[in-house]
Amino acid sequence: MNENIKVPMPTLERLSTYLRYLQDVQARGVHTILSADVERDTGVNAAQFRKDLSFFGEFGKPGVGYNVLELQQRIARILQVHREQPVVLVGAGNLGTALIGYPGLRRHGFVIAGVFDNSPKKIGQRLGEMEIQDIQYLKEGIVKLGAKIGILTVPASEAQTIANTMVEADVKGILNFAPATLRLPADITVRDVYFFQELAVLSYCVSRAELLAERSE
Amino acid sequence: MNENIKVPMPTLERLSTYLRYLQDVQARGVHTILSADVERDTGVNAAQFRKDLSFFGEFGKPGVGYNVLELQQRIARILQVHREQPVVLVGAGNLGTALIGYPGLRRHGFVIAGVFDNSPKKIGQRLGEMEIQDIQYLKEGIVKLGAKIGILTVPASEAQTIANTMVEADVKGILNFAPATLRLPADITVRDVYFFQELAVLSYCVSRAELLAERSE
Repeated sequence: MNENIKVPMPTLERLSTYLRYLQDVQARGVHTILSADVERDTGVNAAQFRKDLSFFGEFGKPGVGYNVLELQQRIARILQVHREQPVVLVGAGNLGTALIGYPGLRRHGFVIAGVFDNSPKKIGQRLGEMEIQDIQYLKEGIVKLGAKIGILTVPASEAQTIANTMVEADVKGILNFAPATLRLPADITVRDVYFFQELAVLSYCVSRAELLAERSE
Repeated sequence: MNENIKVPMPTLERLSTYLRYLQDVQARGVHTILSADVERDTGVNAAQFRKDLSFFGEFGKPGVGYNVLELQQRIARILQVHREQPVVLVGAGNLGTALIGYPGLRRHGFVIAGVFDNSPKKIGQRLGEMEIQDIQYLKEGIVKLGAKIGILTVPASEAQTIANTMVEADVKGILNFAPATLRLPADITVRDVYFFQELAVLSYCVSRAELLAERSE
Protein backbone atom coordinates (compact mmCIF):
# COMPACT_ATOMS: atom_id res chain seq x y z
CA MET A 1 0.00 0.00 0.00
CA ASN A 2 1.32 3.41 -0.97
CA GLU A 3 1.04 5.42 2.23
CA ASN A 4 0.99 8.69 0.32
CA ILE A 5 -2.11 8.05 -1.76
CA LYS A 6 -5.14 10.01 -0.60
CA VAL A 7 -8.03 7.58 -0.59
CA PRO A 8 -11.39 9.08 -1.67
CA MET A 9 -13.95 9.33 1.14
CA PRO A 10 -16.60 7.31 -0.77
CA THR A 11 -14.07 4.47 -1.05
CA LEU A 12 -13.46 4.56 2.70
CA GLU A 13 -17.21 4.56 3.28
CA ARG A 14 -17.70 1.55 1.06
CA LEU A 15 -14.97 -0.43 2.84
CA SER A 16 -17.20 -0.82 5.88
CA THR A 17 -20.04 -1.95 3.62
CA TYR A 18 -17.72 -4.59 2.18
CA LEU A 19 -16.68 -5.63 5.67
CA ARG A 20 -20.31 -6.05 6.72
CA TYR A 21 -21.02 -8.01 3.56
CA LEU A 22 -18.02 -10.30 4.09
CA GLN A 23 -19.15 -11.03 7.64
CA ASP A 24 -22.62 -11.89 6.33
CA VAL A 25 -21.36 -14.29 3.66
CA GLN A 26 -18.89 -15.87 6.10
CA ALA A 27 -21.78 -16.46 8.49
CA ARG A 28 -23.47 -18.27 5.59
CA GLY A 29 -20.40 -20.51 5.28
CA VAL A 30 -19.11 -18.94 2.06
CA HIS A 31 -15.30 -19.01 1.74
CA THR A 32 -14.70 -17.31 -1.60
CA ILE A 33 -16.49 -14.50 -3.44
CA LEU A 34 -16.25 -12.79 -6.81
CA SER A 35 -16.65 -9.06 -7.39
CA ALA A 36 -19.86 -9.98 -9.24
CA ASP A 37 -21.23 -11.39 -5.97
CA VAL A 38 -20.45 -8.10 -4.26
CA GLU A 39 -22.32 -6.20 -6.97
CA ARG A 40 -25.34 -8.49 -6.73
CA ASP A 41 -25.53 -8.40 -2.95
CA THR A 42 -24.44 -4.86 -2.03
CA GLY A 43 -25.39 -2.93 -5.16
CA VAL A 44 -21.82 -1.64 -5.53
CA ASN A 45 -20.61 -2.02 -9.10
CA ALA A 46 -18.02 -4.84 -9.43
CA ALA A 47 -15.47 -2.56 -11.12
CA GLN A 48 -15.93 0.01 -8.34
CA PHE A 49 -15.30 -2.70 -5.76
CA ARG A 50 -12.03 -3.71 -7.45
CA LYS A 51 -11.00 -0.07 -7.83
CA ASP A 52 -11.71 0.62 -4.15
CA LEU A 53 -9.53 -2.30 -3.09
CA SER A 54 -6.76 -1.33 -5.52
CA PHE A 55 -5.95 1.69 -3.36
CA PHE A 56 -4.66 -0.73 -0.75
CA GLY A 57 -2.70 -3.26 -2.77
CA GLU A 58 -3.32 -6.59 -4.47
CA PHE A 59 -6.46 -8.49 -3.53
CA GLY A 60 -7.96 -11.73 -4.77
CA LYS A 61 -6.84 -14.12 -7.49
CA PRO A 62 -7.99 -13.74 -11.12
CA GLY A 63 -10.55 -16.41 -11.93
CA VAL A 64 -10.56 -17.61 -8.34
CA GLY A 65 -11.94 -14.62 -6.49
CA TYR A 66 -11.44 -13.34 -2.98
CA ASN A 67 -10.91 -15.35 0.16
CA VAL A 68 -13.68 -14.10 2.46
CA LEU A 69 -11.76 -14.39 5.71
CA GLU A 70 -8.54 -12.91 4.36
CA LEU A 71 -10.31 -9.97 2.72
CA GLN A 72 -12.23 -9.33 5.93
CA GLN A 73 -9.04 -9.26 7.97
CA ARG A 74 -7.26 -6.97 5.53
CA ILE A 75 -10.13 -4.47 5.33
CA ALA A 76 -10.45 -4.50 9.13
CA ARG A 77 -6.74 -3.70 9.35
CA ILE A 78 -6.98 -0.92 6.76
CA LEU A 79 -9.79 0.69 8.77
CA GLN A 80 -7.92 -0.09 11.99
CA VAL A 81 -10.98 -1.82 13.41
CA HIS A 82 -9.08 -5.08 13.98
CA ARG A 83 -8.11 -3.85 17.47
CA GLU A 84 -9.96 -2.36 20.41
CA GLN A 85 -9.99 1.40 20.69
CA PRO A 86 -11.59 3.55 23.37
CA VAL A 87 -14.26 6.04 22.35
CA VAL A 88 -15.64 8.79 24.54
CA LEU A 89 -19.31 9.75 24.43
CA VAL A 90 -20.65 13.13 25.50
CA GLY A 91 -24.41 13.32 25.94
CA ALA A 92 -26.19 10.59 27.88
CA GLY A 93 -29.62 11.04 26.33
CA ASN A 94 -31.66 8.59 24.27
CA LEU A 95 -29.29 8.83 21.33
CA GLY A 96 -26.22 8.25 23.48
CA THR A 97 -27.97 5.31 25.10
CA ALA A 98 -28.86 3.94 21.68
CA LEU A 99 -25.23 4.17 20.57
CA ILE A 100 -23.97 2.38 23.67
CA GLY A 101 -26.37 -0.43 22.93
CA TYR A 102 -25.71 -0.37 19.20
CA PRO A 103 -24.68 -3.85 18.04
CA GLY A 104 -21.54 -4.07 15.98
CA LEU A 105 -19.59 -1.20 17.49
CA ARG A 106 -17.98 -3.30 20.22
CA ARG A 107 -17.60 -6.23 17.84
CA HIS A 108 -15.47 -3.93 15.68
CA GLY A 109 -13.39 -2.79 18.59
CA PHE A 110 -15.10 0.51 19.34
CA VAL A 111 -15.38 0.47 23.10
CA ILE A 112 -17.35 3.38 24.52
CA ALA A 113 -15.10 3.72 27.53
CA GLY A 114 -16.36 6.95 29.00
CA VAL A 115 -19.73 8.74 29.08
CA PHE A 116 -20.06 12.37 30.10
CA ASP A 117 -23.01 14.68 30.64
CA ASN A 118 -23.65 18.05 32.24
CA SER A 119 -26.96 17.18 33.86
CA PRO A 120 -26.82 16.82 37.68
CA LYS A 121 -29.70 14.35 37.30
CA LYS A 122 -27.56 12.09 35.10
CA ILE A 123 -24.08 12.47 36.58
CA GLY A 124 -23.34 9.45 38.77
CA GLN A 125 -26.12 7.39 37.21
CA ARG A 126 -25.23 4.20 35.36
CA LEU A 127 -25.53 3.87 31.60
CA GLY A 128 -24.89 0.32 30.48
CA GLU A 129 -21.74 -0.76 32.30
CA MET A 130 -20.59 2.79 32.86
CA GLU A 131 -21.16 5.56 35.31
CA ILE A 132 -22.06 8.88 33.71
CA GLN A 133 -19.31 11.37 34.55
CA ASP A 134 -19.43 15.11 35.04
CA ILE A 135 -18.53 16.91 31.84
CA GLN A 136 -16.27 19.27 33.76
CA TYR A 137 -13.82 16.34 33.96
CA LEU A 138 -14.08 15.60 30.25
CA LYS A 139 -10.56 16.62 29.30
CA GLU A 140 -8.84 14.63 32.05
CA GLY A 141 -11.17 11.72 31.35
CA ILE A 142 -10.29 11.59 27.67
CA VAL A 143 -6.55 11.85 28.36
CA LYS A 144 -6.83 9.07 30.97
CA LEU A 145 -8.67 6.81 28.51
CA GLY A 146 -6.36 7.76 25.65
CA ALA A 147 -9.43 8.13 23.44
CA LYS A 148 -8.73 9.53 19.96
CA ILE A 149 -12.37 9.34 18.87
CA GLY A 150 -15.25 11.22 20.47
CA ILE A 151 -19.00 11.08 19.91
CA LEU A 152 -21.13 14.18 20.43
CA THR A 153 -24.83 13.74 21.16
CA VAL A 154 -25.47 17.12 22.74
CA PRO A 155 -27.58 20.16 21.82
CA ALA A 156 -26.19 22.29 18.97
CA SER A 157 -25.53 25.16 21.38
CA GLU A 158 -23.02 23.08 23.37
CA ALA A 159 -21.34 21.18 20.54
CA GLN A 160 -18.50 23.58 19.64
CA THR A 161 -17.30 24.07 23.21
CA ILE A 162 -17.27 20.34 23.92
CA ALA A 163 -15.57 19.62 20.58
CA ASN A 164 -12.87 22.15 21.51
CA THR A 165 -12.29 20.35 24.81
CA MET A 166 -12.08 17.01 23.00
CA VAL A 167 -9.43 18.43 20.68
CA GLU A 168 -7.48 19.86 23.65
CA ALA A 169 -7.50 16.31 25.04
CA ASP A 170 -5.97 15.09 21.74
CA VAL A 171 -9.10 13.61 20.17
CA LYS A 172 -8.49 13.40 16.41
CA GLY A 173 -11.88 12.27 15.14
CA ILE A 174 -15.38 13.36 16.13
CA LEU A 175 -18.72 11.78 15.27
CA ASN A 176 -21.06 14.74 15.57
CA PHE A 177 -24.82 14.27 15.97
CA ALA A 178 -25.42 17.88 16.97
CA PRO A 179 -27.01 19.99 14.22
CA ALA A 180 -24.09 22.42 14.28
CA THR A 181 -21.13 23.11 11.99
CA LEU A 182 -18.00 22.49 14.07
CA ARG A 183 -14.96 24.68 13.41
CA LEU A 184 -11.86 22.68 14.30
CA PRO A 185 -8.19 22.42 13.28
CA ALA A 186 -7.56 20.91 9.84
CA ASP A 187 -6.04 17.71 11.26
CA ILE A 188 -9.29 16.81 13.04
CA THR A 189 -11.75 14.62 11.12
CA VAL A 190 -15.43 15.30 11.76
CA ARG A 191 -18.29 13.11 10.58
CA ASP A 192 -21.68 14.79 10.88
CA VAL A 193 -24.84 12.75 11.24
CA TYR A 194 -27.65 15.20 10.64
CA PHE A 195 -31.07 13.54 10.81
CA PHE A 196 -32.93 16.50 9.38
CA GLN A 197 -30.62 16.49 6.37
CA GLU A 198 -31.36 12.82 5.68
CA LEU A 199 -35.10 13.41 5.90
CA ALA A 200 -34.87 16.58 3.79
CA VAL A 201 -33.10 14.68 1.02
CA LEU A 202 -35.79 12.00 1.18
CA SER A 203 -38.47 14.69 1.15
CA TYR A 204 -37.03 16.19 -2.03
CA CYS A 205 -36.63 12.82 -3.77
CA VAL A 206 -40.12 11.67 -2.78
CA SER A 207 -41.77 14.85 -4.07
CA ARG A 208 -39.77 14.61 -7.31
CA ALA A 209 -40.86 10.99 -7.75
CA GLU A 210 -44.50 11.95 -7.26
CA LEU A 211 -44.14 14.86 -9.69
CA LEU A 212 -42.67 12.61 -12.38
CA ALA A 213 -45.30 9.95 -11.69
CA GLU A 214 -48.12 12.48 -12.19
CA ARG A 215 -46.54 13.61 -15.46
CA SER A 216 -46.33 10.08 -16.80
CA GLU A 217 -50.01 9.49 -16.04
CA MET B 1 -36.34 25.80 -12.17
CA ASN B 2 -35.82 23.21 -14.87
CA GLU B 3 -37.76 20.20 -13.60
CA ASN B 4 -35.68 17.87 -15.76
CA ILE B 5 -32.28 18.69 -14.29
CA LYS B 6 -30.95 15.98 -12.04
CA VAL B 7 -29.58 17.71 -8.95
CA PRO B 8 -26.41 16.12 -7.51
CA MET B 9 -26.91 14.45 -4.13
CA PRO B 10 -24.17 16.53 -2.43
CA THR B 11 -26.02 19.68 -3.52
CA LEU B 12 -29.24 18.36 -1.98
CA GLU B 13 -27.34 17.51 1.20
CA ARG B 14 -25.86 20.99 1.41
CA LEU B 15 -29.28 22.65 1.00
CA SER B 16 -30.27 21.57 4.49
CA THR B 17 -26.97 22.91 5.82
CA TYR B 18 -27.78 26.25 4.19
CA LEU B 19 -31.27 26.14 5.66
CA ARG B 20 -29.88 25.53 9.15
CA TYR B 21 -27.37 28.34 8.67
CA LEU B 22 -30.05 30.76 7.46
CA GLN B 23 -32.17 30.01 10.50
CA ASP B 24 -29.16 30.65 12.74
CA VAL B 25 -28.33 34.01 11.18
CA GLN B 26 -31.98 35.03 11.17
CA ALA B 27 -32.12 34.25 14.88
CA ARG B 28 -29.18 36.63 15.24
CA GLY B 29 -31.23 39.34 13.51
CA VAL B 30 -29.32 39.23 10.21
CA HIS B 31 -31.46 40.07 7.18
CA THR B 32 -28.99 39.79 4.30
CA ILE B 33 -25.98 37.53 3.70
CA LEU B 34 -23.26 37.19 1.09
CA SER B 35 -21.92 33.90 -0.24
CA ALA B 36 -18.67 34.84 1.53
CA ASP B 37 -20.56 34.75 4.84
CA VAL B 38 -21.78 31.25 4.02
CA GLU B 39 -18.21 30.14 3.30
CA ARG B 40 -16.90 31.64 6.53
CA ASP B 41 -19.66 30.19 8.71
CA THR B 42 -20.42 26.81 7.12
CA GLY B 43 -17.12 25.98 5.47
CA VAL B 44 -18.83 25.53 2.10
CA ASN B 45 -16.93 27.34 -0.63
CA ALA B 46 -18.78 30.49 -1.79
CA ALA B 47 -18.67 29.43 -5.45
CA GLN B 48 -20.06 26.01 -4.49
CA PHE B 49 -22.90 27.71 -2.61
CA ARG B 50 -23.81 29.80 -5.68
CA LYS B 51 -23.53 26.76 -7.95
CA ASP B 52 -25.77 24.72 -5.65
CA LEU B 53 -28.46 27.41 -5.72
CA SER B 54 -28.16 27.85 -9.49
CA PHE B 55 -29.81 24.45 -10.00
CA PHE B 56 -33.01 25.99 -8.72
CA GLY B 57 -33.12 29.38 -10.42
CA GLU B 58 -32.00 32.92 -9.69
CA PHE B 59 -31.10 33.80 -6.12
CA GLY B 60 -29.82 36.98 -4.51
CA LYS B 61 -28.83 40.31 -6.00
CA PRO B 62 -25.28 40.99 -7.23
CA GLY B 63 -23.52 43.31 -4.79
CA VAL B 64 -26.47 43.15 -2.41
CA GLY B 65 -26.51 39.51 -1.41
CA TYR B 66 -29.27 37.19 -0.33
CA ASN B 67 -32.35 38.02 1.67
CA VAL B 68 -32.17 35.58 4.60
CA LEU B 69 -35.90 35.03 5.01
CA GLU B 70 -36.62 34.71 1.29
CA LEU B 71 -33.75 32.27 0.72
CA GLN B 72 -34.89 30.21 3.70
CA GLN B 73 -38.41 29.99 2.35
CA ARG B 74 -37.25 29.06 -1.13
CA ILE B 75 -34.89 26.33 0.07
CA ALA B 76 -37.59 24.98 2.39
CA ARG B 77 -39.94 24.80 -0.60
CA ILE B 78 -37.33 23.12 -2.81
CA LEU B 79 -36.84 20.44 -0.14
CA GLN B 80 -40.59 20.36 0.46
CA VAL B 81 -40.05 20.91 4.18
CA HIS B 82 -42.25 24.03 4.17
CA ARG B 83 -45.28 21.85 4.89
CA GLU B 84 -46.11 19.13 7.39
CA GLN B 85 -45.67 15.56 6.25
CA PRO B 86 -46.35 12.37 8.17
CA VAL B 87 -43.47 9.97 8.77
CA VAL B 88 -43.81 6.43 10.06
CA LEU B 89 -41.27 4.96 12.47
CA VAL B 90 -40.66 1.23 12.89
CA GLY B 91 -38.63 0.26 15.93
CA ALA B 92 -39.50 1.80 19.30
CA GLY B 93 -36.11 1.34 20.94
CA ASN B 94 -33.69 3.97 22.22
CA LEU B 95 -32.88 5.18 18.74
CA GLY B 96 -36.54 5.49 17.77
CA THR B 97 -37.18 7.33 21.01
CA ALA B 98 -34.25 9.64 20.30
CA LEU B 99 -35.62 10.43 16.84
CA ILE B 100 -39.08 11.23 18.19
CA GLY B 101 -37.50 13.65 20.61
CA TYR B 102 -35.03 15.01 18.06
CA PRO B 103 -35.39 18.79 17.85
CA GLY B 104 -35.84 20.26 14.42
CA LEU B 105 -37.71 17.41 12.75
CA ARG B 106 -41.16 18.68 13.74
CA ARG B 107 -40.08 22.28 13.19
CA HIS B 108 -39.36 21.27 9.59
CA GLY B 109 -42.67 19.57 9.17
CA PHE B 110 -41.61 15.98 9.72
CA VAL B 111 -44.32 14.64 11.99
CA ILE B 112 -43.67 11.13 13.26
CA ALA B 113 -47.31 10.16 13.06
CA GLY B 114 -47.08 6.44 13.68
CA VAL B 115 -44.74 4.19 15.68
CA PHE B 116 -44.68 0.43 15.22
CA ASP B 117 -42.85 -2.38 16.95
CA ASN B 118 -43.09 -6.17 17.14
CA SER B 119 -42.41 -6.50 20.87
CA PRO B 120 -45.48 -7.47 22.95
CA LYS B 121 -43.81 -5.55 25.79
CA LYS B 122 -43.88 -2.34 23.77
CA ILE B 123 -47.10 -2.63 21.78
CA GLY B 124 -49.76 -0.49 23.45
CA GLN B 125 -47.21 1.49 25.46
CA ARG B 126 -46.89 5.22 24.90
CA LEU B 127 -43.90 6.79 23.19
CA GLY B 128 -44.05 10.56 23.33
CA GLU B 129 -47.59 11.46 22.30
CA MET B 130 -48.11 8.20 20.48
CA GLU B 131 -49.15 4.68 21.26
CA ILE B 132 -46.78 2.03 19.90
CA GLN B 133 -48.71 -0.08 17.41
CA ASP B 134 -48.37 -3.71 16.47
CA ILE B 135 -46.16 -4.10 13.41
CA GLN B 136 -48.63 -6.55 11.91
CA TYR B 137 -50.81 -3.51 11.16
CA LEU B 138 -47.95 -1.56 9.60
CA LYS B 139 -49.24 -1.57 6.02
CA GLU B 140 -52.76 -0.40 6.92
CA GLY B 141 -51.27 2.13 9.32
CA ILE B 142 -49.04 3.69 6.69
CA VAL B 143 -51.86 3.85 4.14
CA LYS B 144 -54.14 5.45 6.73
CA LEU B 145 -51.50 8.07 7.58
CA GLY B 146 -50.62 8.60 3.93
CA ALA B 147 -46.95 8.50 4.94
CA LYS B 148 -44.49 8.55 2.03
CA ILE B 149 -41.41 8.47 4.29
CA GLY B 150 -40.52 5.69 6.71
CA ILE B 151 -37.78 5.37 9.31
CA LEU B 152 -36.31 1.97 10.14
CA THR B 153 -34.64 1.49 13.52
CA VAL B 154 -34.87 -2.29 13.70
CA PRO B 155 -32.32 -5.12 13.75
CA ALA B 156 -30.65 -5.86 10.41
CA SER B 157 -32.40 -9.23 10.21
CA GLU B 158 -35.84 -7.57 10.08
CA ALA B 159 -35.05 -4.56 7.91
CA GLN B 160 -35.71 -5.96 4.42
CA THR B 161 -39.11 -7.46 5.28
CA ILE B 162 -40.31 -4.27 6.93
CA ALA B 163 -38.96 -2.14 4.08
CA ASN B 164 -40.90 -4.33 1.63
CA THR B 165 -44.09 -3.72 3.62
CA MET B 166 -43.41 0.01 3.63
CA VAL B 167 -43.06 -0.02 -0.15
CA GLU B 168 -46.28 -2.04 -0.52
CA ALA B 169 -47.95 0.74 1.47
CA ASP B 170 -46.60 3.28 -1.05
CA VAL B 171 -43.71 4.65 1.00
CA LYS B 172 -41.25 6.27 -1.43
CA GLY B 173 -38.37 7.17 0.87
CA ILE B 174 -36.76 5.22 3.71
CA LEU B 175 -34.30 6.40 6.34
CA ASN B 176 -32.55 3.17 7.26
CA PHE B 177 -30.61 2.81 10.51
CA ALA B 178 -30.38 -0.97 10.26
CA PRO B 179 -26.92 -2.22 9.23
CA ALA B 180 -28.36 -3.98 6.20
CA THR B 181 -28.33 -3.31 2.46
CA LEU B 182 -31.97 -2.91 1.41
CA ARG B 183 -32.97 -4.16 -2.04
CA LEU B 184 -35.92 -2.12 -3.23
CA PRO B 185 -37.48 -0.87 -6.49
CA ALA B 186 -35.50 1.82 -8.32
CA ASP B 187 -38.09 4.54 -7.60
CA ILE B 188 -37.59 4.18 -3.84
CA THR B 189 -34.99 6.44 -2.23
CA VAL B 190 -33.06 4.96 0.69
CA ARG B 191 -30.75 6.89 2.99
CA ASP B 192 -28.59 4.66 5.16
CA VAL B 193 -27.27 5.88 8.49
CA TYR B 194 -24.63 3.35 9.47
CA PHE B 195 -22.92 4.22 12.75
CA PHE B 196 -20.15 1.67 12.34
CA GLN B 197 -19.30 3.12 8.94
CA GLU B 198 -18.96 6.60 10.43
CA LEU B 199 -16.67 5.34 13.18
CA ALA B 200 -14.67 3.19 10.76
CA VAL B 201 -13.98 6.23 8.56
CA LEU B 202 -12.89 8.15 11.66
CA SER B 203 -10.73 5.24 12.74
CA TYR B 204 -8.96 5.22 9.38
CA CYS B 205 -8.45 8.99 9.31
CA VAL B 206 -7.24 9.10 12.93
CA SER B 207 -4.69 6.34 12.37
CA ARG B 208 -3.49 8.06 9.17
CA ALA B 209 -3.11 11.34 11.03
CA GLU B 210 -1.04 9.66 13.74
CA LEU B 211 1.09 7.89 11.14
CA LEU B 212 1.83 11.15 9.33
CA ALA B 213 2.48 12.90 12.65
CA GLU B 214 5.06 10.25 13.64
CA ARG B 215 6.77 10.62 10.27
CA SER B 216 7.04 14.39 10.61
CA GLU B 217 8.68 14.05 14.03
